[in-house]
Parts: sequence; C-alpha cells; structure tokens
Amino acid sequence: MKIQSAQLHDELEKLASFSDTPAPSVTRVVFSPVDLQARAYVKVLCRAAGLTVREDAVGNTFARWVGSDPSLPAVGTGSHIDAIPHAGRYDGTVGVLGGLEAIRALQREGVRPRRSIELILFTSEEPTRYGIGCLGSRLLSKTLDPAAAGQLKDREGKTLDQIRVEAGFAGSLSDVPLASGHYSAFIELHIEQGPLLERSKTPLGVVTAIAAPASLRIFLEGEGGHAGAVLMPDRRDAFLAAAEIALAIERAAKSTGAIDTVGTVGVCEVFPGAINSIPSRVRIEVDIRDIDRTRRDGVLDALASACKEIGERRRVRILTETINQDSPAQSDAAVVEALAQSCESLGFAYSRMVSRAYHDSLFMSRISPMAMLFIPCRGGVSHRPDEYAAPEDIERGTLALAEALAKLAG
Amino acid sequence: MKIQSAQLHDELEKLASFSDTPAPSVTRVVFSPVDLQARAYVKVLCRAAGLTVREDAVGNTFARWVGSDPSLPAVGTGSHIDAIPHAGRYDGTVGVLGGLEAIRALQREGVRPRRSIELILFTSEEPTRYGIGCLGSRLLSKTLDPAAAGQLKDREGKTLDQIRVEAGFAGSLSDVPLASGHYSAFIELHIEQGPLLERSKTPLGVVTAIAAPASLRIFLEGEGGHAGAVLMPDRRDAFLAAAEIALAIERAAKSTGAIDTVGTVGVCEVFPGAINSIPSRVRIEVDIRDIDRTRRDGVLDALASACKEIGERRRVRILTETINQDSPAQSDAAVVEALAQSCESLGFAYSRMVSRAYHDSLFMSRISPMAMLFIPCRGGVSHRPDEYAAPEDIERGTLALAEALAKLAG
Repeated sequence: MKIQSAQLHDELEKLASFSDTPAPSVTRVVFSPVDLQARAYVKVLCRAAGLTVREDAVGNTFARWVGSDPSLPAVGTGSHIDAIPHAGRYDGTVGVLGGLEAIRALQREGVRPRRSIELILFTSEEPTRYGIGCLGSRLLSKTLDPAAAGQLKDREGKTLDQIRVEAGFAGSLSDVPLASGHYSAFIELHIEQGPLLERSKTPLGVVTAIAAPASLRIFLEGEGGHAGAVLMPDRRDAFLAAAEIALAIERAAKSTGAIDTVGTVGVCEVFPGAINSIPSRVRIEVDIRDIDRTRRDGVLDALASACKEIGERRRVRILTETINQDSPAQSDAAVVEALAQSCESLGFAYSRMVSRAYHDSLFMSRISPMAMLFIPCRGGVSHRPDEYAAPEDIERGTLALAEALAKLAG
Repeated sequence: MKIQSAQLHDELEKLASFSDTPAPSVTRVVFSPVDLQARAYVKVLCRAAGLTVREDAVGNTFARWVGSDPSLPAVGTGSHIDAIPHAGRYDGTVGVLGGLEAIRALQREGVRPRRSIELILFTSEEPTRYGIGCLGSRLLSKTLDPAAAGQLKDREGKTLDQIRVEAGFAGSLSDVPLASGHYSAFIELHIEQGPLLERSKTPLGVVTAIAAPASLRIFLEGEGGHAGAVLMPDRRDAFLAAAEIALAIERAAKSTGAIDTVGTVGVCEVFPGAINSIPSRVRIEVDIRDIDRTRRDGVLDALASACKEIGERRRVRILTETINQDSPAQSDAAVVEALAQSCESLGFAYSRMVSRAYHDSLFMSRISPMAMLFIPCRGGVSHRPDEYAAPEDIERGTLALAEALAKLAG
C-alpha cells in the first residue's frame, strides 16, 4: 500500500489557504466564510474519491465509502478543520485529509471492505466562537442538549441556530445524535500537540486515554476610578485580583505532583482598559486538564478557594461559570490493538501514550469503541503559525491508519 | 456677583450628550466626531459671550475677553473636554464651562479688567488615543517636540498629524508653543478626583503642588502553544509574567511608606487570547505617581528590578517603553494667595492641598504662574459614569474662580 504524499501535502497547503490571517498563520473560525470555503474544498475531494457526502444540522460532514455489507455498523475516522486565531495548518486537518488519503490508498490497493468506512469532519472542535470545544461531537454523542446548544451565543450575540442556518445547515439539532452502535470503531489521526514523540524519536503514538478538560469563565467586579487619585488602601482593583487568580491556578496545577496536570488563563479582558483608570471589571477564561479526574477536580477546588480568599481580601466580586467539566476517556482495547498491530506489521515504532489535549474522540468514545493515533509535531508546538508536522510523519500516520481501518472494516 | 447655576448645569448636561456611549457614561476621545461636535458647542457659547476664538494647530482653543490694556499678558483659565471610555461628565468640563461662566459673571457685574482673560480648552488631556496625557499643554509649554508629537500613532496606526488635519486643524505644530510671559497667571478649576474634600466637608481646595506621573508600556513575549499539551515546567507564559509585574507594582507603591504613592496597570492585552492557547504576547500599560519625584522614581526602579527577575525566571522577554516621566509642579505663591483671598472674601472654607491627579496645569506651570482650584466630587469617584459634582459645589468653585480672575486681571 502506498500513500500519495505529495498530493496529500498539496491538499494540506490548499486547505491552509482558506484563512482569515496571512500565511503561515491560519485563522478559520467555524461558519466564517473561509470555513465554508474550506468545507466545500474537502467535499469536492471526498466526492472525487467516490464517497457519499451527508451533512447534519450542525454541519458535521460524513463522507462514506460504502462497504460490501452496508447494513453493518461502519468504521469511522476523521477530525476537524476549524482553527483558532493565528493557529497552524496541521491541527485537525491531518486527521481529515489523512483519513481521506487512507481511504483512497485502500481503494487504489483494490481493498473491498465489508463494513463501510466513513470519514467525519466534526463542526467546531475549537471553542473560539461559542466558548465550548467539540460542539459537533458533543451533539453527536448526546453530551450536549440540542436546544441549549442552539441558543449558544458568539461574541456578537448571534446564536448557533442563527449562524448555522445562515451557513446553510438547516434542520433540527435534535436529529444530530447518532445511535450507539452506529460505528463499530472510530479512529482519529492527529498531531501530538506535545513534545514526547519528537523527544523520544518515536514516529507514532497509540493513544490509550484522553485527558479530561474543564473550562471556566471568571467574572471579576471591583471598583474603578482615577489611577492618580484613588489611594492604594482604598482600591478594589479587579485586574490585580485576576492576576492573583492566574498565579493561584499555576501553583495549584504545579502542586498536584503529576506532570499531567496543566492550568492556563488564555483570555483576559480588562474594562475600561485605559492607562489612567483602575480596572473595574475583568473577565478571564481558564482551562484546566488532567488525565485523572479526581486530581483535576482538586485543582478546581483549589481555584474556588483562591477566588473566595482573593475576593474577600480585595473586596472584588468574583463569579465563576463552568463552561464544561468533562470526564476523561479510555480508548477501546480492540481498537488500540488494531492500531498497534498495524504499526508492527508496517515496521513502525510506536508508543502507547495519553492525550493531554482534547479531541472529538473524547466524545466519540461515548457512542463508539475509540482510539487515537498521534504523529510527532516539531517542538510539540501547536495552536501557533509555526506548527509543523513532517511529510514523512504524516505519511506513516496515514499508512498505519489505513491498515487499521482495513483490519477493523473486515 | 452671581453664578447662573441652572444655565451652567444645562450646559454641562448638553456637553455630556456628545458621547460615544449612552448616558450616564461619557466617551469622548480626542478628534472623534463627538469631540468635534462638543468643541463646536463650546465655541458657540464662547462667541455668544463676546469672546474672540482662536484655535492652534493641535486644536487647543483660546477664547479671549479682551481687557482694557490688550498689550499686557493675559490671565488664563481652562481645562479639557475629552473623556476616556466610559467616563463621567465633570472631569475637565467643569473647568471649561465653569471658566466661561466665571467670565460671564464678571461681564454681568460690569467688571472691565485691565488684562485680557482667556479661556483655554486644551486638546487631549486624556492619554486614550495617543498614549500620552496633556498633549495640548505639553506642546504649548514646549515639553514635547512638535515633530515627534505629529508622528504619534493611535491604535489604528493613524498619526496625530493625519488626524488633526482631517479634524480641521492645519498649520505647523511648531507654531503651537506659547512664549513664557504670554500669561501673567493661570488657574484651572477642576473636580478633586479624590475623596479628601468630601470627607473633610470642605467646599474648596487650593492646590499647592501637582503629583508627578510616570507612564510606561511593557511588552512581554513568551511562547504560546496548546493549553492542554505544553507541560507546566516547559511554559513561558507571558500573561503570568504580566500578572506578577502588576502585583510587584502594587507592592512597590504600597511599600514607600507614603500614602501619596500610587501604581496602576489599567491596560492588559493578551495575544492570541483564546481559552485553549497559552498567552505568547502581552502588552500592559502602567501609571505610577507621587508628589515626590524621588519616591516615585524609586517605584520605577523597583519595577525595573521586578521585570528583570520575572523575565529571567519565566524566560519571558520584557521590553519597557517610557511614555512620560514628568517632574511634579509647584503652584505659584501669588496665584495661590489670590485664590485663598477669594475664598475668604466669599466666606467659603478651603484647604490647601496637593493634586495627585495629573492636569494641564502641570505643564502650564512651566510657562506661567499657576494654581488650581478643586471642588469635591462624590465618593472621590472620577473616570466613571457615576462621577458627580453637586451644583452648589460647582457654583462655589465658579464664584471663587471669577473673584480670583478679576483680582489677577486688575
């Protein structure tokens, strides 16, 4: 079996050109014009490969290579193509275009699978627009209430229902969930987004568990005033309270004793935001993850205590809103085994590893046996314009994926 | 002598209506359409009072009541009408419209002053647009190089030269400076922007010194990456470095042992600003003030040490840009005395006090004998929509100003 690496590379380049920021930076927010153009491009490629394309009400896109027994549950593969502001070109896209190339490689090889093999492009894996990650796979797996999802608002106050219909995805969100048993197996190919494979010079990683993310919005309300005139003891500075909270999160994440605990404040908005005004209101957004739920929730508890203490001491009102607090996922032993055997039969070294990043597979695990396949990315860098995966690594990942899909589709 | 308090109140209300945010919030950034409308309104009022209006190349506006000996240096009074985002309606405006009403009160009384009395509306006292406060009075007093000033850029990259010409203020900025001796005295009426007069139930404050402000921009550059995948020990989070700097400024300002030292981080912008991205770059803006230059510069030194230590420990590049670092101003003894005598002859209690906030008078002191007159504002609140000065306090301030202007104009 052979991967057409040059073509796959060209397709990844072309996909990266659908961006709201200049290359090498990629910005492709869900349902923006460039996202819709990118989706159209992927659909053209899928149809050219003879796949049957279906889209659901939230824009999840399914491209099916019909098997010899279409009545059997299919084998799924896929990922996402949306990108946070100023991201790179490999996160998600390798799983979509690599998944497609895996199918084409099997077709070229004359393989005729018993089960259908279905490529999935998940809507809004990134939380950029609606503040919640994995919108498409949450809905597919009934993790998110369809009515509540439709009312999610972006920063301009536009609801998901409004925007998806404008983008051409009509119908009811209640029709999005898939029955458990729709897929017999699901595999997502993805860049590692961490440095471990590169450091250990291992070309492939078979993911045995996915870390559990918790996301929060914290609203701080103190008192503003003139930066020259309000004396230090009289202040209720919302930004200083936010600064202490950010440092408390770092301390709590570092003090669990486990390298897998991470905590980040990625968003901080200050009001009124003038050099000579004391910040009266601040909004921060927090992301805390671990592969161990108890340990992660311990950091959340530490954060809650810190907010209480800081709020009281600084006389700043602190409100915390949980965006999501998901459970970690375990991969399915049989799917992990299929991937491991594929790597071995191809002669590729691999590690069993956990995913600290958060993927649609986390939610697919609730309705399907699931595993993920990681390839290295340079310096472990992701969500940045200089994100990079080498063509030979993408090729190895795509080959191993194709082998495993063939095995699982029988 | 009588102040037409109801008319003055209506004029302040009308002026507040020129705003980019809904009442009671006032947002009037220099050279915005609402700023130009507000200027036009003030000029109409000045001309209606028989004053001769002149504007210079940066938009400083001079409305002169010609004295019986026009060859003598004039007596100046005035303030600003620009307002930071979401500010109130009294900061600056009381000195402009109160100054005008003081002139009208003298006119109604039949006073015929020997020296001309000139009302000044200073351009861009607030640093909102060009990052530097007191743009107009800095230029008038030769504190700022005209060529450098013209090249100052706003957030959209538009230079002051470009914007002022679009706003109708042509000519060369080199013609803005006034000769020392242009004014024989200058008085600015202003709300205190602090709580001391209110707390001590004193209706008027005669300002004997103005605190020295220092403003800085600090650029932090760390390394971004995926919030789930980059391990805590590997991070170079620019926001956490900024958080530590903000807290270090607070500590340094509190530890001088003087209540007059204040330090504020009013602006914090985080890039890329996504919940699942580690902040790679942050920009903060810092304001540090004291009435004692040595003490204030001690806080700047402490800040520089903190930046060095934090930058090295967190492997974050930290660049500091000084926007301004001005010397404090002493009021002129004779002008202070004129104000004190006016208060006494009117039977108004007053305190001698220092101004911790930063005013055009700081720069006028370099070319003219100067003092300021403060009136109370509720709760010491300023730069907020709920900023409030009582009509009776505005009336007392305007009366005392009128008395002092008459005395000084001879």
